[in-house]
Amino acid sequence: MLRRCAPLRKRFAFVAGNDGKYGNADKNPASFRRRHAGHRRRQLLAGQDQPGLLGLVGPFGGCTAATILRALIDHPQRAGDPLSLTVNFCAPVAEGAFDLDVRLVKANRSSQHWCVEMTQGGGDVATLATAIFAERRPSWSHQQVVFPGAAPFEQARRFPNTPMTWTHQYDFRFVEGEPSFYGSPASPPLDAFSKQWIGDRAPRKIDMLSLMSMSDAFFGRVFLARQELMPFGTVSITTYFHTASDELAAEDITRVLAVADARIFHRSYGDQHGELWSPSGRLLATTTQIAYFKA
Amino acid sequence: MLRRCAPLRKRFAFVAGNDGKYGNADKNPASFRRRHAGHRRRQLLAGQDQPGLLGLVGPFGGCTAATILRALIDHPQRAGDPLSLTVNFCAPVAEGAFDLDVRLVKANRSSQHWCVEMTQGGGDVATLATAIFAERRPSWSHQQVVFPGAAPFEQARRFPNTPMTWTHQYDFRFVEGEPSFYGSPASPPLDAFSKQWIGDRAPRKIDMLSLMSMSDAFFGRVFLARQELMPFGTVSITTYFHTASDELAAEDITRVLAVADARIFHRSYGDQHGELWSPSGRLLATTTQIAYFKA
Repeated sequence: MLRRCAPLRKRFAFVAGNDGKYGNADKNPASFRRRHAGHRRRQLLAGQDQPGLLGLVGPFGGCTAATILRALIDHPQRAGDPLSLTVNFCAPVAEGAFDLDVRLVKANRSSQHWCVEMTQGGGDVATLATAIFAERRPSWSHQQVVFPGAAPFEQARRFPNTPMTWTHQYDFRFVEGEPSFYGSPASPPLDAFSKQWIGDRAPRKIDMLSLMSMSDAFFGRVFLARQELMPFGTVSITTYFHTASDELAAEDITRVLAVADARIFHRSYGDQHGELWSPSGRLLATTTQIAYFKA
Repeated sequence: MLRRCAPLRKRFAFVAGNDGKYGNADKNPASFRRRHAGHRRRQLLAGQDQPGLLGLVGPFGGCTAATILRALIDHPQRAGDPLSLTVNFCAPVAEGAFDLDVRLVKANRSSQHWCVEMTQGGGDVATLATAIFAERRPSWSHQQVVFPGAAPFEQARRFPNTPMTWTHQYDFRFVEGEPSFYGSPASPPLDAFSKQWIGDRAPRKIDMLSLMSMSDAFFGRVFLARQELMPFGTVSITTYFHTASDELAAEDITRVLAVADARIFHRSYGDQHGELWSPSGRLLATTTQIAYFKA
């Protein structure tokens, strides 16, 4: 049985690319660092010209979350598939290099519990994450929730670029609930539901990293509810993976059908919950988050 | 700005009562320990006569989660209201005393990020939790989700005791989806939705601790889907609080209306998502979890 002890800690220091692809298939942090040295670690949520949109947390969290997941998947002691990842965004992340302190807290035959802290320049913790990996043993299967379905990706209109430059990495095609950020603030708030295709702008086979990043690639529900942009930031996101890596690889897809909705906005915080589906109708991941908004 | 450093770590050692009430209104761990010394820390999920029902994780996690939340609320450096709590159950918890290693990872003017590790007898980490506290500043409010509504508590039938002794602490009254554990295994699986009132068997005013514990007090969705009990254990639970403490205190309620459902069971894991409502129709908390089941 593995125990928490010094040798299980491993420090990673690498820089993620600005292509939103969390290192592609390159599993070697050193090589990855060399290739991407000098690139910005993340895109800013709203670009530098609109610092008021940075919000509480800062740049796109999906890439940070995927980067953390990648560090875990690449860890020599990792066993099993990602089951759950929770990422708490403690402070804005600056451009440039960062350190990940990756710790295997507990492991047994069927699961592993990890804790990851991201810091920059030896400063405070900027991101705190916990993850669970598990052996996905065979069992009966049942999808209780119904596949939302949609017109094919090719028939849906590509969503135009927004001032949030991270969105340029994705090909969003809304089927329902396409947001409009530039109207008058809606009062009372509008329905926050949306259904959309999400793929990478440069098509890339969907893997666990894609699912993690895409699970944070919904627009803030509050933007849809109010029909305007405002300072906003995800505070915590949790994503559950409902597919084993081998099953996901066998899907061989480059896009997911995604739905997202909110239940409540109250006292400066709102929630979001979402689902990521394969085009063939398999539920691949579910996600939830709590986010700050400035009223 | 608070930093991660030794003085912010504080070790708690106290024993929770077996009354499912996570310390009642007593805020003093030492006094709490004295009052409850010798009591069992948690109820077993299925009692000692049915160890096959203990599952991956063991006894009722809601009490553990509430105990962790209580340690945070009582921490001298805590500021703001609970916003989010994620609890990862790493290993079964044995009866008896435990230690909580409570660490304030990062704080700023409006929020705090905490990490808590529970151990027993200096052994491996049994429970790993992260929490976020936040100042709930005023904003516009909007409930996107519709109050599910239900016949009044008094008109609903009290759910009979189950072999899972922790359930004896609660007064469950199902409005829809009352589970039946003793039929033939359902194939294909049944609908896993349920709507129910949840109160303490000995009525107790609902506070944040109640919400945390009750958010794990749904029966495993897989029990409803299959109409049978089986080895089962929550692996990770995340609960978001959508009310400030002062608002919750003003509600002055002793029960919540709760709904829960599952989206998928696959490769030995299934999810759950739920909502906890005040009888007056205010959404107090939302919760999600991923759980192991033995097929």
